[in-house]
Amino acid sequence: MSDNMLKGKRILITHANQFMGPVLCDVFKERGAEVIRDFSSLNNAEETEKVINAAGEIDVLVANLSVTAPSTEASKVTDDEWKNTFATIVDPLPRLFRAVLPQMIDRSYGKILVVGSASALRGINRASTYSAARGAQLGYVQAVGVEVAKHNIQVNAIAQNFVDNPTYFPPEVQANEQFKERLKREVPLGRLVEAREDADFAAYLCSDMANCFVGQIFPICGGWVTR
Amino acid sequence: MSDNMLKGKRILITHANQFMGPVLCDVFKERGAEVIRDFSSLNNAEETEKVINAAGEIDVLVANLSVTAPSTEASKVTDDEWKNTFATIVDPLPRLFRAVLPQMIDRSYGKILVVGSASALRGINRASTYSAARGAQLGYVQAVGVEVAKHNIQVNAIAQNFVDNPTYFPPEVQANEQFKERLKREVPLGRLVEAREDADFAAYLCSDMANCFVGQIFPICGGWVTR
Amino acid sequence: MSDNMLKGKRILITHANQFMGPVLCDVFKERGAEVIRDFSSLNNAEETEKVINAAGEIDVLVANLSVTAPSTEASKVTDDEWKNTFATIVDPLPRLFRAVLPQMIDRSYGKILVVGSASALRGINRASTYSAARGAQLGYVQAVGVEVAKHNIQVNAIAQNFVDNPTYFPPEVQANEQFKERLKREVPLGRLVEAREDADFAAYLCSDMANCFVGQIFPICGGWVTR
Amino acid sequence: MSDNMLKGKRILITHANQFMGPVLCDVFKERGAEVIRDFSSLNNAEETEKVINAAGEIDVLVANLSVTAPSTEASKVTDDEWKNTFATIVDPLPRLFRAVLPQMIDRSYGKILVVGSASALRGINRASTYSAARGAQLGYVQAVGVEVAKHNIQVNAIAQNFVDNPTYFPPEVQANEQFKERLKREVPLGRLVEAREDADFAAYLCSDMANCFVGQIFPICGGWVTR
Repeated sequence: MSDNMLKGKRILITHANQFMGPVLCDVFKERGAEVIRDFSSLNNAEETEKVINAAGEIDVLVANLSVTAPSTEASKVTDDEWKNTFATIVDPLPRLFRAVLPQMIDRSYGKILVVGSASALRGINRASTYSAARGAQLGYVQAVGVEVAKHNIQVNAIAQNFVDNPTYFPPEVQANEQFKERLKREVPLGRLVEAREDADFAAYLCSDMANCFVGQIFPICGGWVTR
Repeated sequence: MSDNMLKGKRILITHANQFMGPVLCDVFKERGAEVIRDFSSLNNAEETEKVINAAGEIDVLVANLSVTAPSTEASKVTDDEWKNTFATIVDPLPRLFRAVLPQMIDRSYGKILVVGSASALRGINRASTYSAARGAQLGYVQAVGVEVAKHNIQVNAIAQNFVDNPTYFPPEVQANEQFKERLKREVPLGRLVEAREDADFAAYLCSDMANCFVGQIFPICGGWVTR
Repeated sequence: MSDNMLKGKRILITHANQFMGPVLCDVFKERGAEVIRDFSSLNNAEETEKVINAAGEIDVLVANLSVTAPSTEASKVTDDEWKNTFATIVDPLPRLFRAVLPQMIDRSYGKILVVGSASALRGINRASTYSAARGAQLGYVQAVGVEVAKHNIQVNAIAQNFVDNPTYFPPEVQANEQFKERLKREVPLGRLVEAREDADFAAYLCSDMANCFVGQIFPICGGWVTR
Repeated sequence: MSDNMLKGKRILITHANQFMGPVLCDVFKERGAEVIRDFSSLNNAEETEKVINAAGEIDVLVANLSVTAPSTEASKVTDDEWKNTFATIVDPLPRLFRAVLPQMIDRSYGKILVVGSASALRGINRASTYSAARGAQLGYVQAVGVEVAKHNIQVNAIAQNFVDNPTYFPPEVQANEQFKERLKREVPLGRLVEAREDADFAAYLCSDMANCFVGQIFPICGGWVTR
């Protein structure tokens, strides 16, 4: 499926080589976008500001933030695990938004899509740090979404799980029999969501067809949660 | 925005001259679908079966069901108001699904989209009958969605409110100053969702790009509810 | 645990010998309520009005409505199954509310608790009719809750699943090994919610401590859904 | 209303002189609990461990964490605001849980209630930092709740808003005419939830009657959000 849904859009994708980054870049380009890939850690304000300034005019920012999800019992989570996880996928948000919102407000036009996680919508065993960090993202998106809607800027989030991607579901996991059974049992879809299905939906949300969504959370997880 | 997202799809749209029917027909045709418009009341099983049989092979059923929303205080709702509302937008669902699911199961392929209402997700004054009926739709979609996912059939719903359509927001309502203020105050988007924005999203959900959604409820209401 | 949380309250419980009826009657009496048990079908307006009138002054109405949940594939649900299910647990609602709200509005005081189901919040296989009917209840509660809050009347609902009760989890089901495994797998609590745990919570929601809840849905299902 | 719902429970309440701390201490004592009030910042692991160790056997931990909610436009939020807010109400969570869970797991008994915010469930203007931090709390609670349920430990959260408390609704705010109008307009309850109503519900969730709730989020906000 190919069309020009994103024709003429300049779209910055962060952590572009991780998580959903590669497939988002591919699909967005196929759909006509000019994709600016960023590989920075975004772990300090100055660096982040430079990334945004270097990108020039940005129609859409895709805050794709990736971290290896710790699998630690809650009673053993260290301050370091916590700090590192938040530093990687939560703390970049205000830096990115602070840097990019002014140009969007000036033009009364823009979109920000956060690639978030459904782990913030439903509890998962040994995932407390990750779920907390992803929960921060969704709370943030809802609030900023409401705040900047008046400037014709749409801020929304995907809340995904069980989407095929090398960061969370590498081939060895997918080949594991126990994982396959878990998939059948826990995911009504009965399979992983394909990376391109996720990216297709992200493309839609980044297109002008999606000007009506405000601070909304879209689960994409094969029915694991539905709202 | 025009593309061939629905190319080759035979799509049956019910209550095609009401509610979101007209704009759905237009947008779906523009996107390549062969649209079969139905104008039946669907108020009995035989009639409904005939509609489906006459339509032949159906790739997508859009259950667009329309009724004038009563605005009655809960203490004054009559059994007739209740019965009529459910007869019009709830009772057709099992008839439609019973008639269309077998051919979809046979082909291991199909989609059903229910055009539902966000009034089932958030309380509205003097809307008890309507909210109940729309709540039935969403409960139904979630259950059938999970049930038929294994047949590669996707059943999902839009839960809309504050979408421009002649059934619920006729011109005289939209021109009303009090309504305009309410819109600014209650709807973060600050305006009605355009009919085509709603239809665009419906088109997406009826396309092959949306094979990954199972029994999901998608609010489209300008941020009035977000999940 | 015993206290006088409901002291002096006259509480009408419908379908009092079914579903959560018996345990609600017991627990509410232990907590000081004067319980009026009703066994009517509530399948017509006159009968329902008589029930309410005969009960006299009602502080709290517990709309406990019970039906055998059909377990039919969506493609085989008959109009009769649908009609019967809605007639039993959905259509009594407007009759009950119409009959009881006027006296509550007159006194600026009252509570209505609907004993609903979490099947309206998360899809279940072969449960389309039941989920739809329970969805109608939740949509209704949200709307009426908002509408009558200004009269100091609180309308809320429990959305339960995996609660021990003879209607849905009779001893033979609970003894079934497959069911036990399903419970471990699907319900984070790892066991059925006890009937009294459910009734305790219902008692709380019917007490003066719960005057602040408006049209709210409270899942009680051992973590099967959490909001 | 007084009873012995919490009789014999040793309950540690953090930030005991802030946010809901004072009323929680009062109500919990009235209901028979032995309340241990803590006033630490919990801003480092050692201090937090000492607090828990000094408290001895803890049946219930109430993670009441308070911060002045910044009211900054998203484009002007500084890293310092972000860091300080998370340091105050988010980062203490893993420290507290790490310190208290082992004794609860040893005894196969315990409860943790997080006093969270509904701002994580619905967007609020100029509240992005706070909503994000509160979102982290809810994501965390859901995950840990599922994880420790097998040890007979219940972890849940209140998600409150429009609850009378000196931290967020000081007298001068409540006396403000604009605020009063906003309350009527936005909060179906038409008034602030009283501090004791909130504390009563918290007491219930900390009692043995609430052993069936797992990782659940309970909105208490006068109907501002209902699930």
